[in-house]
Amino acid sequence: MKRKPAQPVQRVRRRPLIGRLAIFGVGLIGGSFALALKRARAVGHVVGVGRTRANLLAARRLGIIDEIATDAAAAVRDADLVLIATPLRQIEGILATIAPHLGPRTVVTDAGSTKQSVIAMARSTLGAALPRFVPAHPIAGTEKSGARAAFAELYRGRNLIVTPVPGIEPRAQSLVERAWRACGMRVIRMDAAEHDRVFAHVSHLPHVLAFAMVDLIACAPDARRMFGFAAGGFRDFTRIAASSPEMWRDICATNREAILAGLDAYQQELEAMYALIEQGYLEALTERFARARAARTRWVAAK
Amino acid sequence: MKRKPAQPVQRVRRRPLIGRLAIFGVGLIGGSFALALKRARAVGHVVGVGRTRANLLAARRLGIIDEIATDAAAAVRDADLVLIATPLRQIEGILATIAPHLGPRTVVTDAGSTKQSVIAMARSTLGAALPRFVPAHPIAGTEKSGARAAFAELYRGRNLIVTPVPGIEPRAQSLVERAWRACGMRVIRMDAAEHDRVFAHVSHLPHVLAFAMVDLIACAPDARRMFGFAAGGFRDFTRIAASSPEMWRDICATNREAILAGLDAYQQELEAMYALIEQGYLEALTERFARARAARTRWVAAK
Repeated sequence: MKRKPAQPVQRVRRRPLIGRLAIFGVGLIGGSFALALKRARAVGHVVGVGRTRANLLAARRLGIIDEIATDAAAAVRDADLVLIATPLRQIEGILATIAPHLGPRTVVTDAGSTKQSVIAMARSTLGAALPRFVPAHPIAGTEKSGARAAFAELYRGRNLIVTPVPGIEPRAQSLVERAWRACGMRVIRMDAAEHDRVFAHVSHLPHVLAFAMVDLIACAPDARRMFGFAAGGFRDFTRIAASSPEMWRDICATNREAILAGLDAYQQELEAMYALIEQGYLEALTERFARARAARTRWVAAK
Repeated sequence: MKRKPAQPVQRVRRRPLIGRLAIFGVGLIGGSFALALKRARAVGHVVGVGRTRANLLAARRLGIIDEIATDAAAAVRDADLVLIATPLRQIEGILATIAPHLGPRTVVTDAGSTKQSVIAMARSTLGAALPRFVPAHPIAGTEKSGARAAFAELYRGRNLIVTPVPGIEPRAQSLVERAWRACGMRVIRMDAAEHDRVFAHVSHLPHVLAFAMVDLIACAPDARRMFGFAAGGFRDFTRIAASSPEMWRDICATNREAILAGLDAYQQELEAMYALIEQGYLEALTERFARARAARTRWVAAK
């Protein structure tokens, strides 16, 4: 029986926001979510699910998760929240597997970089649980991966994009938003199609362009000589070409339409620059360069 | 009359490599050349020529130059070496102006980022002095400009590309190479067309692509929102789009053929990636991404 405290508001040990959390994919993203929630005392018990036993063992040893799930169904049955933080192409299979086992109040969310595709996967698999699915994209990361790369500070001050679908349960959306806010994120709601278009331009397209630039030189007959003269500008321009090929294949596959539209627009821009250089319209070329420089300078100043 | 020293090799005050140096364009490149030569005791007297009086006064105050030239003809008449370190489009006019006034042993060199065009300018202006023209390109720089940006260490450990033309005077080429070596550079000789092709790919093309990427977003109807979500990958990818529009216009104009050829090849590479994404050939797409990542990783490791 509880003792009655003199100052109830201060002394009552409140239940955490999330009693039981199940994470599919305990890597940089999923692991950092668990660590940040634990630091904020916003989670009780964390169960990890994954394909690589060594990674799960490391996650438990590092205090990221409290338990390694023996099967996915058991992991989600009593969970208040399920986070799917795997590569995009695994999400649909996981949703299909867990759908029949979700508790009546269990909320499901993801951390995928593209959103319309994940929503389509949820629609085709979750059935009655669909209103408790909250599509989300934390804009944070490093070039590292795995549980060992996780750290509680990853999300502090960064943006979380939530792209709710019509019919979503307000309680589910609120739980997910509060959880990420507890990790230090700022929550922004956006239409899924707009999310995909924006990130196709400012993130996915630059990655494809950087991969293409490095590949062009790698396939040149004098590739070694060319790389020998590449300097600092080239290094920064191509840094994102060091990213995971599999992750970017998945992003290209799941955000196909928006990336193709962005590539199309970019190719038109390049065609225009090609024509200005070819025909010697140097003032018009300078204007485009100057417009780009000014826009970038404003952006950097506003950051 | 000289006193005979006991240890002649150590005590004789030798004449510097360059008695009198004239620099057209006393900015980051020209100013750093003067500072590096002075530190190496490889130059006697430095005369600066330029269009901006305030910059020349700053250069003299900073000890970069010893004298501000009153006219170009006088500056080059007794010079051992003339360096033209102005923007590319000014080089031809300067060569035409100084050609009638060059001393019979005066060597002329440049620091332009493109070489076939500069050689063509020299051929059409220098007449009998052409064999004493040494086309060169020091691969060094920062995003800053002007005499105040100059520093003696700029060239240490970096590459100087020399693209000699048939008939060049060996003494002239040797003087220029020794001068840049005194600044700490490694000298590499290369055919001018090859130079232009290599740098079109590893430097000029990435600049055009970065300008095009930023311009694409700057012209989008929701540019503000897009920039709002751009993050670290975008920042690095577009850093070179902060470069001088005028300098890059000049490079596009003077290395037109090689840049257009590079753009053409790049557009084909993009077309191929577009088709792989559109048609869902995801394994072939992953292979290209992985080939690019592997090439970049090898390059970074070899640096």
